[in-house]
Amino acid sequence: MAPPPDDENMLKILLATDIHLGYMEKDPIRGNDSLVSFEEILEIAKKKDVDFVLLGGDLYHDNKPSRKTLHGSIALLRRYCMGDRPIQFEFLSDQSINFDHCQFPTLNYEDQNFNVNMPVFSIHGNHDDPTGQGNLCSLDLLHSAGLVNYFGKTTSLEKIQLSPLLLQKGNTKLALYGLGSVRDERLHRMFVHKNCAMLRPKENKDDWFNLFVIHQNRSKHTATNYIPEQFLDDFLDLVFWGHEHECRIDPEWNGNQNFYVTQPGSSIATSLSEGESKEKHVGLLMIRGKDFKLTKIPLETVRQFYIEDVVLSDTTLDPNDHDVGQKVESYCQQKVENLLLKAEAEHTGNAKQPDKPLIRLRIDYSGGFEPFSVYRFGQKFVDKIANPKDIVLFQRKKVHSIKKDDGDELELLAKIKPQSLDSARVEDMVRDYFTKVESGSKLQVLTEKGMGDAIKEYVDKEEREAISELVKYQVGKTQKYLKQRNADEEVIDVEICRFRDERKGKKQEEEEIQEAMKLAQAKRSSQDDKDENDNDASVIDSEDSDSSSTASRGRGRGRGRGSRARGSTSSQTSTRGSRGGRGKKTPVVENNTITNSFSKFKRSPRGASNKS
Amino acid sequence: MAPPPDDENMLKILLATDIHLGYMEKDPIRGNDSLVSFEEILEIAKKKDVDFVLLGGDLYHDNKPSRKTLHGSIALLRRYCMGDRPIQFEFLSDQSINFDHCQFPTLNYEDQNFNVNMPVFSIHGNHDDPTGQGNLCSLDLLHSAGLVNYFGKTTSLEKIQLSPLLLQKGNTKLALYGLGSVRDERLHRMFVHKNCAMLRPKENKDDWFNLFVIHQNRSKHTATNYIPEQFLDDFLDLVFWGHEHECRIDPEWNGNQNFYVTQPGSSIATSLSEGESKEKHVGLLMIRGKDFKLTKIPLETVRQFYIEDVVLSDTTLDPNDHDVGQKVESYCQQKVENLLLKAEAEHTGNAKQPDKPLIRLRIDYSGGFEPFSVYRFGQKFVDKIANPKDIVLFQRKKVHSIKKDDGDELELLAKIKPQSLDSARVEDMVRDYFTKVESGSKLQVLTEKGMGDAIKEYVDKEEREAISELVKYQVGKTQKYLKQRNADEEVIDVEICRFRDERKGKKQEEEEIQEAMKLAQAKRSSQDDKDENDNDASVIDSEDSDSSSTASRGRGRGRGRGSRARGSTSSQTSTRGSRGGRGKKTPVVENNTITNSFSKFKRSPRGASNKS
Repeated sequence: MAPPPDDENMLKILLATDIHLGYMEKDPIRGNDSLVSFEEILEIAKKKDVDFVLLGGDLYHDNKPSRKTLHGSIALLRRYCMGDRPIQFEFLSDQSINFDHCQFPTLNYEDQNFNVNMPVFSIHGNHDDPTGQGNLCSLDLLHSAGLVNYFGKTTSLEKIQLSPLLLQKGNTKLALYGLGSVRDERLHRMFVHKNCAMLRPKENKDDWFNLFVIHQNRSKHTATNYIPEQFLDDFLDLVFWGHEHECRIDPEWNGNQNFYVTQPGSSIATSLSEGESKEKHVGLLMIRGKDFKLTKIPLETVRQFYIEDVVLSDTTLDPNDHDVGQKVESYCQQKVENLLLKAEAEHTGNAKQPDKPLIRLRIDYSGGFEPFSVYRFGQKFVDKIANPKDIVLFQRKKVHSIKKDDGDELELLAKIKPQSLDSARVEDMVRDYFTKVESGSKLQVLTEKGMGDAIKEYVDKEEREAISELVKYQVGKTQKYLKQRNADEEVIDVEICRFRDERKGKKQEEEEIQEAMKLAQAKRSSQDDKDENDNDASVIDSEDSDSSSTASRGRGRGRGRGSRARGSTSSQTSTRGSRGGRGKKTPVVENNTITNSFSKFKRSPRGASNKS
Repeated sequence: MAPPPDDENMLKILLATDIHLGYMEKDPIRGNDSLVSFEEILEIAKKKDVDFVLLGGDLYHDNKPSRKTLHGSIALLRRYCMGDRPIQFEFLSDQSINFDHCQFPTLNYEDQNFNVNMPVFSIHGNHDDPTGQGNLCSLDLLHSAGLVNYFGKTTSLEKIQLSPLLLQKGNTKLALYGLGSVRDERLHRMFVHKNCAMLRPKENKDDWFNLFVIHQNRSKHTATNYIPEQFLDDFLDLVFWGHEHECRIDPEWNGNQNFYVTQPGSSIATSLSEGESKEKHVGLLMIRGKDFKLTKIPLETVRQFYIEDVVLSDTTLDPNDHDVGQKVESYCQQKVENLLLKAEAEHTGNAKQPDKPLIRLRIDYSGGFEPFSVYRFGQKFVDKIANPKDIVLFQRKKVHSIKKDDGDELELLAKIKPQSLDSARVEDMVRDYFTKVESGSKLQVLTEKGMGDAIKEYVDKEEREAISELVKYQVGKTQKYLKQRNADEEVIDVEICRFRDERKGKKQEEEEIQEAMKLAQAKRSSQDDKDENDNDASVIDSEDSDSSSTASRGRGRGRGRGSRARGSTSSQTSTRGSRGGRGKKTPVVENNTITNSFSKFKRSPRGASNKS
């Protein structure tokens, strides 16, 4: 049921996520895309007169943003979020608990020294997570400068207890939970071991609209590196899922958990994959009592991106033709020309939307065809598209057969991205490959998980040194072990095997991997710095998380576009409220012992009797 | 003549410079020193109730400060500079001109969205100068975040025109000129070619107190890589000289130029040299009409630093003694123990002053003595001093003889810093060495200036890659030239020589050097990033600019400590004002054509009739 028009009881929140400021900033064509869209998002928020902006992580693409990107974001936040409009909602929870990780554990708009008229609340993502001395992230800089309110930072690695931000506007009461990105495996384990608790207000807890913002892998999967929706507590009303770049912003109903999930998706394509080619949106979330409506707003400044599959064997082209090479190229050229026409026709007309689109042709050349020069092909469109260097991706059908082939194929895998990678997680594929294969590809020194995670880092986060660092680290560890054991040459294989098995699946293995990834990150960022000072923009395409998972598509959806299926009557609400028994399935506990955090709320329970 | 006590006509300004935030931040002992002293400086400013804080550059030690340092400084500025006290002075000049290089060309305390009660004005130094995309520096981040007012950034490389910030409190009128660090050679040339202009208010220009803050080499020298005081315009009343780390804060009278110079010095020792061992101060500058008084305030939290020279041949120690090694070590140990006792006695008592002092023994071991292990010696004091690793510096007398020795000595030079280096500029020494020597050390491909500058970068700014990058760059250039000329093997030496002579002393040579230094900087900062992520704190001692120049000591001083020798009567003032003929000597011109910048001032010439 759609809420009535804007009134004093309606909280309006702009939802946006994965803005990836600084993505490809060194690219002369695409370098400014992320900042342009961030500005559009803030403009929309301003125009829609929202109470606040809620960001789902990865505001920055790089853990250490360049000065240019940092400066650009500071300038935009100052420009759009400061001014003379009064804040229309009240903050009821204890700020010193909600922001206890910050040096200034206060809301920026309640600080007399800052005149904030549109607060931004944000969790961190996996790209801009806290690292290094002081365990700070870029959002800490913005928070301390009074430009955002950074919440959801967890300090313990063992146990998470989320104290919601409690907000009230008229009689609408919002409990806002946030959890900044945690390594999926670790968070998964914490959930399994019931070490994740979401605290709830002691009194009148069923009056609250419960919103949770999270930045993790979402798509259903066999491994433990994602967070299944059923892990989340069923008292939640809406989950705002960050990290996944595909726009699935229309709320999807989870019938098991009785909550909706909205996945706004990124505001910039950081990979040339199917999911990223969908139109980009932000959401205008309107909450009134226990009802909500989410209106999706298309972004007009995002660079257009078209992806098309070409299967050469399905065309009339003959691989045995004497000038087949030229014909294939002409055929593909025509495809690109058509996409260019489409882009021109579909341009939003917004002056800030770039003219040159991103285009990707995935060409299946199986059936006797030969790949042509991607570079030469791209040169034809150098003035018309934004990514001439990687316009074409060659691939072959039946990538599953690779698993039975020899080890060289893995290299091939890295070069030609098969379609199935869109729906499978690379780290699992790698792990499976090394685990199942009977050939000589079986790992002896390295661990499968190590390799899988390293390749994932390589693919997802452009961690160019991830694989080499993992190899170096695990080989080094093994050598050290062998020296300590002073092992005889004959038993050296046994010793290696023993050492490997001792660590596998243990905490030790994960620590190793993390250590190696840290080293890789250090190397990468040092390389980045160098690049920044170089003039040639070497463009590397990041294959970011993209949730075009076929598995998750199979799940039931409540694409009601805001028409809420439950919770609109008080009886239903109280029924839900009493379903405490579900706590067994979801390892989230209610904790009533921490009362300090809600003392403020208890003292002023106004609006409790006004519930709609 | 000391001004009367605090009143509505007195501008109070805190002067501090070269705070070098982040210096040695990875050192477990010294890592926090710079932030501690910055906080003390802000505390003093607060306690003294100053109108504003004026910083002379190098607020940050690193061009790209770590997140920890950036966050620490943001937090301190927010804590100390924001609040409810009204600003007591007026700003009369056009902000959009004074801050035209900024995205927000406004004063932070005049922006309604920031509640600033103690403005900070700063120029940049050579450590935190603008670089990279957008030509931004760390002060741009602070400026856009509303935390400082960054001025004195020059955009043209050919011509500098300084528009002063015009401030007024009661009838005191201050024209504040600032010039962020520019490469000394370039600025020197600009002065020589009369391309540096200091604009002055059109009307009543003699009513203004003219203060100039500059961040350049100061000490007198034969080369062109410093700025002689006589280059500066003689209408100035006081020059605030940054960059030089030795505290010479008591105003020194320059009788030729008729102005005072104050050199507050750094608030942290970034080298273990004589000049840095002097007590550190900041200055409380009080201006009333055309009079000023500068009170120096010792910093209580700065880590103590003692330096002592030991000449072994002047002691009773006998180099032929069978256990002379042990005796020398015991002797030196006793010296250190004495310094430790001294440090204990002289501790300021401020709880934030660290207990472990810096100690440096410069041991002259000439006369047949042998150096002992610095590492082993340092280990004895590992719990008592902050720098056990470099407590001792061995050196020999008569370093001047090096020039006549063979090339190997240059290496030695880099390892053992001779005393004379305290007063000579390393780049000139190197240049002299290569120019004058008749041996095979004469350069054939590289230029002497190139080598000199590269070694200077290496020594002054820890630019570890400076020398190798310079070599690479100049060799590469030469090879390219030879290829183009397609030179025969026989004439190759001639061609090399010709190419070298063509560039020497020209703009081209300087550009080459700058390019190479940029590359070195890129490599260094990439290395730094790596270090940041490593755990071992490899401590490198930066030998920063330190002005214990014997040459400059010889100049006349007017250590009148604020008792001003001139300008207190209007007749004298007008005399000075009419000395336009001096313009020949000082290539600074008065420019009356730019009137926009002073239109505001002209419209409100209040106070003009009140001059004292």
